[in-house]
Amino acid sequence: MVGGGQLARMTHQAAIALGQSLRVLAADPEDGAATVAAGVHIGQPTDLEALHRFAKGCDVVTFDHELVPGDHIRALTAAGENVHPSADALHYAQDKRAMRERLSELGGPVPRWRPVATVEEVVEFAAGLPGGWPVVLKAVRGGYDGRGVWVVDGPEAAAAVVGAGAGAELLVEERLPLRRELAVQLARSPFGQVAVYPVVETVQVDGVCTEVLAPAPDLPADRATEIQELAVMIADSLDVVGLLAVELFDTDTGSVVNELAMRPHNSGHWTIEGSRTSQFEQHLRAVLDYPLGACDRTAPAVVMANVLATSEALEPGLDERLHHLFAAEPEVKVHLYGKQPRPGRKIGHVTALGDDPAEVRARAGRAARLLREGTL
Amino acid sequence: MVGGGQLARMTHQAAIALGQSLRVLAADPEDGAATVAAGVHIGQPTDLEALHRFAKGCDVVTFDHELVPGDHIRALTAAGENVHPSADALHYAQDKRAMRERLSELGGPVPRWRPVATVEEVVEFAAGLPGGWPVVLKAVRGGYDGRGVWVVDGPEAAAAVVGAGAGAELLVEERLPLRRELAVQLARSPFGQVAVYPVVETVQVDGVCTEVLAPAPDLPADRATEIQELAVMIADSLDVVGLLAVELFDTDTGSVVNELAMRPHNSGHWTIEGSRTSQFEQHLRAVLDYPLGACDRTAPAVVMANVLATSEALEPGLDERLHHLFAAEPEVKVHLYGKQPRPGRKIGHVTALGDDPAEVRARAGRAARLLREGTL
Repeated sequence: MVGGGQLARMTHQAAIALGQSLRVLAADPEDGAATVAAGVHIGQPTDLEALHRFAKGCDVVTFDHELVPGDHIRALTAAGENVHPSADALHYAQDKRAMRERLSELGGPVPRWRPVATVEEVVEFAAGLPGGWPVVLKAVRGGYDGRGVWVVDGPEAAAAVVGAGAGAELLVEERLPLRRELAVQLARSPFGQVAVYPVVETVQVDGVCTEVLAPAPDLPADRATEIQELAVMIADSLDVVGLLAVELFDTDTGSVVNELAMRPHNSGHWTIEGSRTSQFEQHLRAVLDYPLGACDRTAPAVVMANVLATSEALEPGLDERLHHLFAAEPEVKVHLYGKQPRPGRKIGHVTALGDDPAEVRARAGRAARLLREGTL
Repeated sequence: MVGGGQLARMTHQAAIALGQSLRVLAADPEDGAATVAAGVHIGQPTDLEALHRFAKGCDVVTFDHELVPGDHIRALTAAGENVHPSADALHYAQDKRAMRERLSELGGPVPRWRPVATVEEVVEFAAGLPGGWPVVLKAVRGGYDGRGVWVVDGPEAAAAVVGAGAGAELLVEERLPLRRELAVQLARSPFGQVAVYPVVETVQVDGVCTEVLAPAPDLPADRATEIQELAVMIADSLDVVGLLAVELFDTDTGSVVNELAMRPHNSGHWTIEGSRTSQFEQHLRAVLDYPLGACDRTAPAVVMANVLATSEALEPGLDERLHHLFAAEPEVKVHLYGKQPRPGRKIGHVTALGDDPAEVRARAGRAARLLREGTL
């Protein structure tokens, strides 16, 4: 797996059960996966030579992020390496403009949008919208966790973003009246088998996901099926191999696709305990072309809460906070990523399971707060 | 963790979630845990220098087997290392004679038994039993998985064992009219907190555990509680820190203790998916002195089946057999240990969960057979 973050770290756990050992290409020996995997290479995901050395002898090469350039992936494939997803598929997770264009061709629901290079184009786009300003500017490449996304309320704010971008490709889209955000994950194997997880609600604060509620509360069954079918159509059309996460905006008039990811994804961490097959095992099964595992939930309600660090110097320290959490919530499952707790950084997540969605959500929230702050 | 087998391999998986990384002292770089852990030392568990080097810098040292001599553990403790369980506790898992003597003192139920050095002593013991021959001879140290246990039907057979032992310490015990074998696991922390798992049935074939049924079918609640209380009494009395597995013979007149183990144990593999807290996480929480996790089952019926290799050269190979299993049983969980499939060797296990104990057991059995033989 190229990339040594928490996704690779948790994929390694799943690999062990399958009788495998995950080799990791990490940028830093202190990366979350690099400190727990047996086969660690240190190198940049943009360094083709490092990628060639890394791939040699792997059954299959896959990714924990979108940072490997498509041409590098094509070079690996040309050298005979087995790489999933392919460069052609991954392109649509790396490039929001390409993704929007392709989804529009496929008839998939997307917000109104257009590529923009100048403030004038943003103004023109806003003027053509029924609701006008504010609109949303997005970096075509490289944005995540709220970075690369700007809500702008007029030409001046738009100019600040376009000017600061210094030539970075941007697109503009309408700001939808969101009810909430949804996500659905599936796995697809080279053989073409597909296994789809339940649709979940992802709760965002300042553009960062804080909670995932599985299944999405009060989502009618026919709408859930529609969203799952949309994800299958996208995976088949783009020839995705491995996991695909489809993030959606839920509005009064239906759902539109916001983002795609082709790897394990934060919206699927709940599956470790909450699904019969975790997303990490499922990704490995897919890229290794094994038959896929069952996606059934293991409890009526599952809630995952991210733990975002507040301060490096917080007292009591993380270990003592973990003691408090374990004492208070013996049923909650904890996943720590082995990261230094820089403010705003995801240092772990917690998962609660049970029968009553509200109680489960409250429990996951308490657990995350204890781990984040040491108090309730 | 001293020892690099599958117990250390699965403990490493649990350590990752806790933000830890398991350091492993493996006898062989190809050992199951050595191929997946980041911190691997190669050395013998009987080599004190290797143990000292290994322990340096560890938060706590613990074991995946009983092979470290008590004096070595005492030397580590004297050097300031934090070792759990202690030499004094582990003694009762290493030495069956000491365990039987201590349990008898504590009023714990054990079979009728005595230490023996000569055939005459075996004959005398058999003559004093209501049922007479056959009796069971056991090596006081080092036996496992049916090794070090001999059912002998008369003086001649006894002489063959006593003679072949060449001075190895033996004990003899009555051969009980078994209904079945049971086991119970608990964890105990240095603080003294105890968390007990449900009593399970362990199905043995030729002295080797093939299946674990959780909970033990048709065990009355009061008898289950009695067995759990016995385990707590033993753990408290012996000052066990970490996991304790108590293996019992279930007879018409009650249960007697057969063996103790102070580490993760085959009878607890079902807890990975079948309990809110796996035995591996629980062992780490105990030896690291964290509050212990909940031992609730995640399904009404959980069955673990061991996968014993039949032949190294079996066709189709393990990978193809795994494909068949995944295709046939998408809900079954597989754990492979990364071992060469020498005949009789445990190369992995499978776990099935569900509502109906008979259906779950049949499913686990089918899965184990597919992985062992490639056909049903």
